[in-house]
Amino acid sequence: MFTRCVRNILSRSAFTVTLKRHSWRRCSTSQTETVDQVTTLLQLCVDRFFVSPGHANVELFQRGLCCSYGPLGMELRRNLLDQWWHSVTRSGAQVFGINTLSSSREAPTGGQGQLRIVECEQLKQRLGQKQLSKGRLAEEVHMLLQRSPSMRTNLLQGALEQFVPSLELVNRKLPFGLAETGLCFQPAEGSGCSAEVTQTSLVWFCSPRTSSQWLDHWTRQRLKWWRKFALSPSDFSSNEVQQEELEQAASRGVRIIYNFPWGQEVLETLWSRGDAELLHIHKGDRSKLQHQDGRRSIPHVVSVTANMDRGAMAFLSNSLQQLKREESKKKLHQRKVLKLHPVLVPIKVALNIGRGATVELRQICEGLLQEFLEAKISVWPGYLETLPTSMEQLNAKYDEMGVLFTIIIGENTLESGLLQVRSRDTTIKETMHISEIKNFLFRYISAADNI
Amino acid sequence: MFTRCVRNILSRSAFTVTLKRHSWRRCSTSQTETVDQVTTLLQLCVDRFFVSPGHANVELFQRGLCCSYGPLGMELRRNLLDQWWHSVTRSGAQVFGINTLSSSREAPTGGQGQLRIVECEQLKQRLGQKQLSKGRLAEEVHMLLQRSPSMRTNLLQGALEQFVPSLELVNRKLPFGLAETGLCFQPAEGSGCSAEVTQTSLVWFCSPRTSSQWLDHWTRQRLKWWRKFALSPSDFSSNEVQQEELEQAASRGVRIIYNFPWGQEVLETLWSRGDAELLHIHKGDRSKLQHQDGRRSIPHVVSVTANMDRGAMAFLSNSLQQLKREESKKKLHQRKVLKLHPVLVPIKVALNIGRGATVELRQICEGLLQEFLEAKISVWPGYLETLPTSMEQLNAKYDEMGVLFTIIIGENTLESGLLQVRSRDTTIKETMHISEIKNFLFRYISAADNI
Repeated sequence: MFTRCVRNILSRSAFTVTLKRHSWRRCSTSQTETVDQVTTLLQLCVDRFFVSPGHANVELFQRGLCCSYGPLGMELRRNLLDQWWHSVTRSGAQVFGINTLSSSREAPTGGQGQLRIVECEQLKQRLGQKQLSKGRLAEEVHMLLQRSPSMRTNLLQGALEQFVPSLELVNRKLPFGLAETGLCFQPAEGSGCSAEVTQTSLVWFCSPRTSSQWLDHWTRQRLKWWRKFALSPSDFSSNEVQQEELEQAASRGVRIIYNFPWGQEVLETLWSRGDAELLHIHKGDRSKLQHQDGRRSIPHVVSVTANMDRGAMAFLSNSLQQLKREESKKKLHQRKVLKLHPVLVPIKVALNIGRGATVELRQICEGLLQEFLEAKISVWPGYLETLPTSMEQLNAKYDEMGVLFTIIIGENTLESGLLQVRSRDTTIKETMHISEIKNFLFRYISAADNI
Repeated sequence: MFTRCVRNILSRSAFTVTLKRHSWRRCSTSQTETVDQVTTLLQLCVDRFFVSPGHANVELFQRGLCCSYGPLGMELRRNLLDQWWHSVTRSGAQVFGINTLSSSREAPTGGQGQLRIVECEQLKQRLGQKQLSKGRLAEEVHMLLQRSPSMRTNLLQGALEQFVPSLELVNRKLPFGLAETGLCFQPAEGSGCSAEVTQTSLVWFCSPRTSSQWLDHWTRQRLKWWRKFALSPSDFSSNEVQQEELEQAASRGVRIIYNFPWGQEVLETLWSRGDAELLHIHKGDRSKLQHQDGRRSIPHVVSVTANMDRGAMAFLSNSLQQLKREESKKKLHQRKVLKLHPVLVPIKVALNIGRGATVELRQICEGLLQEFLEAKISVWPGYLETLPTSMEQLNAKYDEMGVLFTIIIGENTLESGLLQVRSRDTTIKETMHISEIKNFLFRYISAADNI
């Protein structure tokens, strides 16, 4: 209900401050602050190119669905998916990546099969057939629907199908896992819109007696992973799914939850699923499914599924700090800083020029830019901007983008090779020699990665 | 026609050698060798976990469509997409990554709108309404179809929509580009099956008078990119699209083509598209579209679109070498080596144990494995395999997987720290100290990347 209240405001406000103020009166006082928090976050995400503008799009984003991302949001989600991939495939456990199709002609199981890709022309042809009776027409449309491929709602089914060929890869030895990331499609709840979600999926195959331990193992691993990148790790938590909420076939479940300003939402779900679905998909052919030390037992499945669109949203929400300070003339200044983890942050460094001979300074920037790109350090070419901005405005903008360091190349650089580096987190400005800056950044990011 | 011949054979053979031989008689002699080549390639892709088994799946793969990939194929395509991303976003040109939705509720343009996601239950409900007349029923289904989101057939439309918010990002200065990779959906040709394709897209916005030069620029860049990873670069070529084949609105076009054993296929297409589509999508609102040094001119669009599923297939085909040699006892030996480029190859190194105390040797392997993973060098844990295999069989297997180096840890390693490293490309075995191996591999791969 509260979420709806926020949404209403958002959809009406068009993200402008004037309308926002007007809307505040609609919520009770205790909610005002939260609404403010949320509006600030969403406004920042749009202004700073994380999310493309437009009500409908921002609403998708806030609902934890895939939306149209701007360059920064795209890079954030990309970094997040990369980190997930490395954490899962380089954990020391035997995990293999796979890629399955997002639509399938197989008989769907579970919730699949709700959404189907229909060829418009074919359907229209059927509808245009004049000689058909109404009953026959309905039947034909039905048949066309049955033959149309269904969109996947999760990555589980694909992984279960790939179990048999993968078993050969590991010499029929358990445990092992299949990892995949990709788009899944969800039927709408009420609104009539289907939605896309970027999911990550680890499907873990193990012996029946160890499945509960593995569920605990992966829960620990995953919670550690989420918290690793958080500014306030306690906003991420896990809880056991209650007996009455268990999915069909599952014996246990755990949810990883994020505490959004508007309430808790599920980021990731882990299920101990037993062997029923595996048997079902392979049509009960037990001989195909048995592992080496099998004794006729069928592997049990532990599934670990996260929503990385909501994950990106959680980290954005988690990392936004609003710092207030009073200035001399009683003007209240508010500084918004997006303290995204150095590994996740889309842009690590911004390159700007101060006073001095523009042509020469630009040349130095170009050289540094190339050096950073080769070292795979993402950089913002601020020196290309021609609109005059004060240093304060510039820093405020970069803080909102989450840029780790801002480098200023000035006259000093031409003379002595020294440049100024400002840190997002400390706001301290250091002087550094141009030859040191790349290694400094590289070490800083690596160190943050290895904590 | 010839492709069909190969396909027929493939679908009948179930990829077994006996049936394959039987089928050979169906084709004329001149085609036999090519068929053999293709069958060998596809068989290898399935055996070595590039592509999941199954006729339908392998056919998708061969047709240059997205299929169900095994761990090696998945990693190959992942590397390919990464390389594409880096080459485009780190080229020094202003290119920003975006992410748009794969389905859209907007009025579709061009070829879009053929495939729609329909909610089965809603459609079935309509069909079940008894009181409706036939005409009314057809009308209701029509309306439902119109309201259903359409699947994208390319990434162009999304980028054109994002032009306006992106213009702000660059202070309204041209040229710049928007890059995206993702699944697109193609209506079927005849077969009745829609298909998925992994596309890469760079949409480049530039001033009208430079668009032809930019088309040439990107053609050179892209061809260089394809050839960089090729074993025989001359199989990749480009040609200008003939006047009569030009797409609507396009003034020029270039195709990048790969010479498959069964004939030429298009990997990438570059179009100089003018401004018509941009204007159409933004409903002719010229003021929104004008850039800084505008003089009322609307940017022209150059689109660069590749099919990375077919790209993966091209590199697999390009890198497969079949070497024959006669053994002493007149036995003909055939060695198949997948000489994938070091940067693209899914697995860089395999770790195996020779004779010696198994427990200790395994411990060394575990340590090395961790070291490699931390250095982001993908490694195959061959030491986990328990089935006894000869060294020759092992090398043959790894050559078919494209593994760059095979490391053997043996008694010698325990005594002196020395291990054996076999190169895929030279088959030469070198002895190296365990402390050197990581740096050796790292340097080898980096060097190949920087050529």
